[in-house]
Amino acid sequence: MTIEFQTEPSRYRHWRFEFDGDVASLIMDVDPKSGLFDYYELKLNSYDLGVDIELNDAIQRLRFEHPEVRTVILKSGKDNVFCAGANIRMLGKATHGHKVNFCKFTNETRLAMEDASENSGQTYMTAVNGSCAGGGYELALSTEHIMLVDDRRSAVSLPEAPLLAVLPGTGGLTRVTDKRKVRRDRADVFCATEEGVRGKRAVDWRLVDEVVPPSKWDDAVKARAREIAARSDRPKDAKGITLPRLEPKMTESRVDYTHVAVELDRAKLIATLTVRGPSAPVPASVEAAHALGAAFWPLAVARELENAILHLRMNEPEINLVLFRTEGEAASVLAYDDFLLSAGKDWLMREIRHYLKRVLKRVDVTAKSLIATIEPGSCFAGTLAELAFAADRSAMLIGTREGDNRAPASIVLGRANFGGYPMGNGLTRLQTRFLGEPDTLKNLEGKIGAPVEGEEAAELGLITVAYEDFDWDDELRVMTEERASFSPDAMTGMEANLRFAGPETMETKIFGRLTAWQNWIFQRPNAIGEQGALTLYGTGVSPTFKRERV
Amino acid sequence: MTIEFQTEPSRYRHWRFEFDGDVASLIMDVDPKSGLFDYYELKLNSYDLGVDIELNDAIQRLRFEHPEVRTVILKSGKDNVFCAGANIRMLGKATHGHKVNFCKFTNETRLAMEDASENSGQTYMTAVNGSCAGGGYELALSTEHIMLVDDRRSAVSLPEAPLLAVLPGTGGLTRVTDKRKVRRDRADVFCATEEGVRGKRAVDWRLVDEVVPPSKWDDAVKARAREIAARSDRPKDAKGITLPRLEPKMTESRVDYTHVAVELDRAKLIATLTVRGPSAPVPASVEAAHALGAAFWPLAVARELENAILHLRMNEPEINLVLFRTEGEAASVLAYDDFLLSAGKDWLMREIRHYLKRVLKRVDVTAKSLIATIEPGSCFAGTLAELAFAADRSAMLIGTREGDNRAPASIVLGRANFGGYPMGNGLTRLQTRFLGEPDTLKNLEGKIGAPVEGEEAAELGLITVAYEDFDWDDELRVMTEERASFSPDAMTGMEANLRFAGPETMETKIFGRLTAWQNWIFQRPNAIGEQGALTLYGTGVSPTFKRERV
Repeated sequence: MTIEFQTEPSRYRHWRFEFDGDVASLIMDVDPKSGLFDYYELKLNSYDLGVDIELNDAIQRLRFEHPEVRTVILKSGKDNVFCAGANIRMLGKATHGHKVNFCKFTNETRLAMEDASENSGQTYMTAVNGSCAGGGYELALSTEHIMLVDDRRSAVSLPEAPLLAVLPGTGGLTRVTDKRKVRRDRADVFCATEEGVRGKRAVDWRLVDEVVPPSKWDDAVKARAREIAARSDRPKDAKGITLPRLEPKMTESRVDYTHVAVELDRAKLIATLTVRGPSAPVPASVEAAHALGAAFWPLAVARELENAILHLRMNEPEINLVLFRTEGEAASVLAYDDFLLSAGKDWLMREIRHYLKRVLKRVDVTAKSLIATIEPGSCFAGTLAELAFAADRSAMLIGTREGDNRAPASIVLGRANFGGYPMGNGLTRLQTRFLGEPDTLKNLEGKIGAPVEGEEAAELGLITVAYEDFDWDDELRVMTEERASFSPDAMTGMEANLRFAGPETMETKIFGRLTAWQNWIFQRPNAIGEQGALTLYGTGVSPTFKRERV
Repeated sequence: MTIEFQTEPSRYRHWRFEFDGDVASLIMDVDPKSGLFDYYELKLNSYDLGVDIELNDAIQRLRFEHPEVRTVILKSGKDNVFCAGANIRMLGKATHGHKVNFCKFTNETRLAMEDASENSGQTYMTAVNGSCAGGGYELALSTEHIMLVDDRRSAVSLPEAPLLAVLPGTGGLTRVTDKRKVRRDRADVFCATEEGVRGKRAVDWRLVDEVVPPSKWDDAVKARAREIAARSDRPKDAKGITLPRLEPKMTESRVDYTHVAVELDRAKLIATLTVRGPSAPVPASVEAAHALGAAFWPLAVARELENAILHLRMNEPEINLVLFRTEGEAASVLAYDDFLLSAGKDWLMREIRHYLKRVLKRVDVTAKSLIATIEPGSCFAGTLAELAFAADRSAMLIGTREGDNRAPASIVLGRANFGGYPMGNGLTRLQTRFLGEPDTLKNLEGKIGAPVEGEEAAELGLITVAYEDFDWDDELRVMTEERASFSPDAMTGMEANLRFAGPETMETKIFGRLTAWQNWIFQRPNAIGEQGALTLYGTGVSPTFKRERV
């Protein structure tokens, strides 16, 4: 089954919007019968990947299609239950790969909410009216303000460990200690208490921001939303753009978008992902860019690249290696970059820059080996050069090819490479790359706009290796064949470590520390064995644990 | 088989010292026939836990028994090979639990070398004369200066991923990117190259600090060692103390040291670890403390506590829960703390403080649930209060017990709690605990020396819960029974996340990110399955990998 990451509000089965001026409510009302797979029902607002694909779409559309929205309230459309978290039967039967990819995507969705709150003037808050368990509370944790109705029933909880023998793995543990800064022993009690915490204690422990009596609930939520909205810098009278469906042409061996193409060589376990630079000149004005909407190259390329990466992750597990290629004019890419940067205060240009940032972060946490191949006619410049810096390795052809009159292969740095696209660790890809050479990094700013070719690129450390034309094919073949021969798991673990040099943030802790432990637990018999808690949940049979501590 | 963590130079099978004034050489010369288990031979200076127990002992003795030593050179006693890393047959057949505990202990040993270099004026360097692979290079990475002989044969390498489908998990990946700040794509190439890197390239890539031609090797190593020694602040004419063997009395249900006792309740999966405060008054002078040597209470208690923790980890895997108790006078503990702190410049007192720090860090990464139970007659003061702050939870009895005339249960803060014992994350346990309440932390300094009892301790956040005498037994029973009923793996993962709020350091990245990924890989069929690379290594049969990327 191919999992489709695109959707649109008219097709939502699980969420709906309500708009009230600058406040939007995003209402979770999961249809139990509309799970991605048919072996479970999504009761009690529990969710699967399909539910989260809609949420991801909703967050994205709020940013692009609703510039007027300044506060987004997460709410439940059901009585007495906010959200029961990830569906347990789904987790119990899903393959290891599906579980891991599901958690990665849901983590990215939650980070997208935080990104909107932090960078887009569109702040998320949660109105918890009913039980809010596990992944449900992790949703709330990803918003900036959590309100809990004080009705002696409604509570927040992270019951995964005691109930299911797994972790609250969608950022829960990390956000409890690092975002909400709950005292570690209280966090320990909280995470070991199935029924959770409610009322005043939930506030005292900083698990929620306020509790409100039922009689005052609606007014209080509304008032808080307005108060948050008042702090936003989003424009008053802007008009959103629409995000039409991408229509990639898919065949057995290719996926073709407008600016992005993926070629699959399944025998070799390789996908070649080509990004094409802009073919049209930059718009005459910011207004003209607005008029282009989703056809504006930077936005179009971000959407296509994101879709391609998600597709490769989820639907092509046996692809071990992604080769990044680009085609086009470096100068055009830089011109678009400058256009985006110069229109710094325009809400849409800002959205597009942050979206590009998020798509590049998806690349960073993609469990495939990434190799950038930089050839004549490519345009690894500015934003697109980030693909080379996100790659585990990059190879550049020296100069031009015989009979090829296109410009020699080069990397062209732009302003965007020096701050526009921080990684999850808070550093730019160049800062991470040159952690040990701050002087090199400083000197590189002097190269902005100048094509850096072959051996100079290698010398400056912008690429891994440069090959002459006559060596190119052989060297690439050897490199990719060798890489594809290694254990996929070892490569995943190695890349997850080598890509994130330097500082850690909540975001990298979620992907590095929390996720790695969860993946370990997802392989342990106490969770997934025949007697394991995930396997037996809901059967009435109690799990039997191997008692050894390792 | 019980694994014994104590040893002494006269019993070493794998290491030897050579002393030359202020420079010591620590020579690895592993006896292939003296492995801990009999199903492998420790060829080519490969190592198992037994080899590392000797190394750990050697590092410790250099600090305490050899104050004159300012530089320690790691060397090989074999021709053409420095060290081949962890023994692969051992890893291939060891249980998951043994592998995990082995890696944890070896990581701690390497951190102990770095601690000596950073804090003890005893700086480690490595003289790599021969091949230096995997764990061998990870040993070198834990030293502050790596010299490589330039003989066209000697190389450094991390071949784990390509050769064995596992990670260089003893800090290798983290130290390459974060300590030596090797550019990430070079690190990627290096970690995928079985034969490693040698000569000038090894220097250019910052994998080693210098290469030296064979003809100049001995002199260059000696000169570098002297140069490093010259920077040390260790005293010229100090006399070391000896670390005699601890002689715990071990029975089926108890381990009794002089100041530490462990009581095992295997049916309940609980160990109760009691630490006794000092019974003798503080020595009259620093000289008198030197004369006491290993009998000086802070040192004795550190050694016993460390041995007890290591024993519980490795030899009592089914113990899931450790209850920390103390017995004695808070004032005495604080008096010893003040004695240690006041003698700040004395080399031995400094060693003892750093040793206590390291032992407490071992507690932090111990995969057992830790609960401090604070009762009348206890002395959770200063250094010993750190046990309560290291615990996942702490419970205090309110006041005294009927018919018990000892002082009410309390925590007494001391200066040592405000900087003496940083955790791996660089923060004190109190800073980590009060990450969200900097004001509380500041106010607590005003409580130094004053017993904080029951409800006040709960109010101030120093403990998790306070119970009345008549509730105590029941509450403790419920808490421990519940905890012991949970999945051991889920608790391990949960505690590994909740204990390390806030910033990450190289040290926490090694235990959190790198180790978690390695443990995941250690469960994956591509490494440990019948067709896995670890299983098949040395058989001549190539591994067959499942090609799915997750």
